[in-house]
Amino acid sequence: MDYQAFFRAKLEGLRAEGNYRDFAELERKCGAFPQAKCHSGPEHVTVWCSNDYLGMGQHPAVLSAMHDALDSTGAGAGGTRNISGTTRAHVELEKELADLHGKDAALLFTSGYVSNWAALGTLAGSIPGLVVLSDALNHASMIEGIRHSRAQKVIWKHNDLNDLEAKLAALPANAPKLIAFESVYSMDGDIAPIKEICDLADRFGAMTYLDEVHAVGLYGPRGGGIAEREGLMDRLTVIEGTLGKAFGVMGGYIAASVELCDFVRSFASGFIFTTALPPSVAAGAVAAVRHLKESNTEREEQHAKVSDVRTRLDEIGLPHIDNSSHIIPVIVGDPNKCKFISDILMRDYGIYIQPINYPTVPKGTERLRITPSPVHSKADIDHLINALGTLWSQCELVRHPLAAQ
Amino acid sequence: MDYQAFFRAKLEGLRAEGNYRDFAELERKCGAFPQAKCHSGPEHVTVWCSNDYLGMGQHPAVLSAMHDALDSTGAGAGGTRNISGTTRAHVELEKELADLHGKDAALLFTSGYVSNWAALGTLAGSIPGLVVLSDALNHASMIEGIRHSRAQKVIWKHNDLNDLEAKLAALPANAPKLIAFESVYSMDGDIAPIKEICDLADRFGAMTYLDEVHAVGLYGPRGGGIAEREGLMDRLTVIEGTLGKAFGVMGGYIAASVELCDFVRSFASGFIFTTALPPSVAAGAVAAVRHLKESNTEREEQHAKVSDVRTRLDEIGLPHIDNSSHIIPVIVGDPNKCKFISDILMRDYGIYIQPINYPTVPKGTERLRITPSPVHSKADIDHLINALGTLWSQCELVRHPLAAQ
Ligand SMILES: Cc1ncc(COP(=O)(O)O)c(C=O)c1O
Ligand SMILES: Cc1ncc(COP(=O)(O)O)c(C=O)c1O
Repeated sequence: MDYQAFFRAKLEGLRAEGNYRDFAELERKCGAFPQAKCHSGPEHVTVWCSNDYLGMGQHPAVLSAMHDALDSTGAGAGGTRNISGTTRAHVELEKELADLHGKDAALLFTSGYVSNWAALGTLAGSIPGLVVLSDALNHASMIEGIRHSRAQKVIWKHNDLNDLEAKLAALPANAPKLIAFESVYSMDGDIAPIKEICDLADRFGAMTYLDEVHAVGLYGPRGGGIAEREGLMDRLTVIEGTLGKAFGVMGGYIAASVELCDFVRSFASGFIFTTALPPSVAAGAVAAVRHLKESNTEREEQHAKVSDVRTRLDEIGLPHIDNSSHIIPVIVGDPNKCKFISDILMRDYGIYIQPINYPTVPKGTERLRITPSPVHSKADIDHLINALGTLWSQCELVRHPLAAQ
Repeated sequence: MDYQAFFRAKLEGLRAEGNYRDFAELERKCGAFPQAKCHSGPEHVTVWCSNDYLGMGQHPAVLSAMHDALDSTGAGAGGTRNISGTTRAHVELEKELADLHGKDAALLFTSGYVSNWAALGTLAGSIPGLVVLSDALNHASMIEGIRHSRAQKVIWKHNDLNDLEAKLAALPANAPKLIAFESVYSMDGDIAPIKEICDLADRFGAMTYLDEVHAVGLYGPRGGGIAEREGLMDRLTVIEGTLGKAFGVMGGYIAASVELCDFVRSFASGFIFTTALPPSVAAGAVAAVRHLKESNTEREEQHAKVSDVRTRLDEIGLPHIDNSSHIIPVIVGDPNKCKFISDILMRDYGIYIQPINYPTVPKGTERLRITPSPVHSKADIDHLINALGTLWSQCELVRHPLAAQ
């Protein structure tokens, strides 16, 4: 078999459907973020699609914790968690995270992806007869974890309580069950009815597994996520999060009971057989989590910026998904157009919004996903709205019927 | 179902067989490594089981690159590689790694674990009818990747060319095939016959996938691994490595053709749907790779220290696996004894060697895995040998028949 020809053909297929991805090569300017240098485009760009939602990636407390850790302990952990790779910073971080979510324990992974994959894979793969009830729009990392476990999987309609209830009721009463879902869905920005899902879980004897990756740091009085905001943390069996988005660094975790964390710690291949996070990364995350437990400023400013951008988009009639989160998806609905607009925004306006195409979102729902943050200025917003308005006219794209112009 | 009781019972099972793991909580002293502070044991310990094989985790070039990147670009990447997370440092690192292995391209992942899992999972899962021929002792991350792909898997006896040949010959001649193996096996330290495996691959039209995780940085004139040392890099389809061991930081990668890397980049869930490595981590890795391309000092000193420790172990008759790598496994053969010796070494001698028990090694082959490095001093070695000698007598453990005392 001609393997190279096979790869080439598959890549050609992607190109033909407009789903081939070019990565913008950026250099964030620490202290001036969302400004960045683009090595594959214009010298100066404003980043409007980062998941460093609060700009914590340039927060002085985070940076100084990382510098200090580099100086005191060095670059890498040098081993798996079990074999010389557990440092003070890892242990401290797990304590902070358990406390953040009101749980007795937490367990760190190298990323949010690995935390979902390894925790779900291990839980669902170990409990005999477990059935996983998975929201239809769950993230790839959850899907892969469940797939990996080879447990029976039942998909329920996205955020649809009736469907979840029907599917729970159809299972044997005594079968062990786990309901896996997210709080803020990252591409549409809609939010799950956590309380009602927990009610159903209680009624049917199911565990609950909540991915708060796009909510930790951002919601709740201490940044514990939507479940904290709604006073529901104690009702969830597992809360999963990332250190790579609002916390500005990298890594993932679960927070749960001592026994559950210890179980995953002891049996999850993806936890056991991999080098631990660098101590400096863990130390930076500790600083970010601590800061956002105390400070509401970043969250308040973010919410203000988000509602400002929304209002301005409405004023010029640009169609965006209405949701109650910080994520503003402007729907284009075609992969080539979506990439085209993104390219022009970058080239002519120095505005970087990566087109979101398949497989990240379903075909036909291609979009620009805008994530306003406290570090975007009024001038940044003006420039964004003007650029989008001009482009929408030039490209003769559909506007909202209520468009002001 | 009582989920908590289930977890407790499983953990009790581990405890009963001596396989429950306690993590030593260390604080590496940057600049003084392998010395560390142990928060869960004595104040001063010497680490003898780190995979920071060359002490690059405290190399000034690595640290200053990381400090600089923190100052100039901040803490985290802020996005997936596709959505604002590709920086200059990532692109540079991929170029360095392609060059290191004499390949046209390389692709970064968040860890070596994820690189194996995602690359093997994607390759084996996408090519219709592909059969994976997997060495019996392959690492968990490779096994999970292959399992994930659901491709047909044929396990061949560890490093056994006859068995590999027989298994290749038994497959349909036109079936696409991939042979997956490691160069240095991490727990026994033995080395694969790479050339002969490539010969078989050519004869049977198979791709080759080589994990050089425990060899990159350590072997070959520029640290390209065993395949570089033996002039075989161009014969391998994929070379996989880590940035978390000899390179002292964190991350993983594959090096291969442009098409293959682009294919994995475009289709691997574990590459696409996760936050990119922090720019500072990538920058530190660039510095480590560059340094070890130029400098042989660390490799030479490591080899000298390794042979010194081996000779000294032989002098006191301690049984260790004979191999031609830098890994010295001292076999104990019982999980409880292994843990006991390790505990006493830590408590009474300030020597940290994590016991390696199941599932990392097969039951009955529990061991102390010693990894001498250029940063271990003559005094460190004396102290290690004295401690082991005393303990072996106290515990009445078996010595080698040729023991000098
Ligand atoms: C819902 C969700 N879960 C998990 C992840 C993975 O987290 P991480 O980026 O830390 O790997 C992501 C995105 O990357 C996500 O959107
Ligand atoms: C052979 C082998 N491959 C891959 C890995 C995973 O690499 P990483 O630690 O970078 O995840 C390891 C160890 O951790 C290993 O021993």
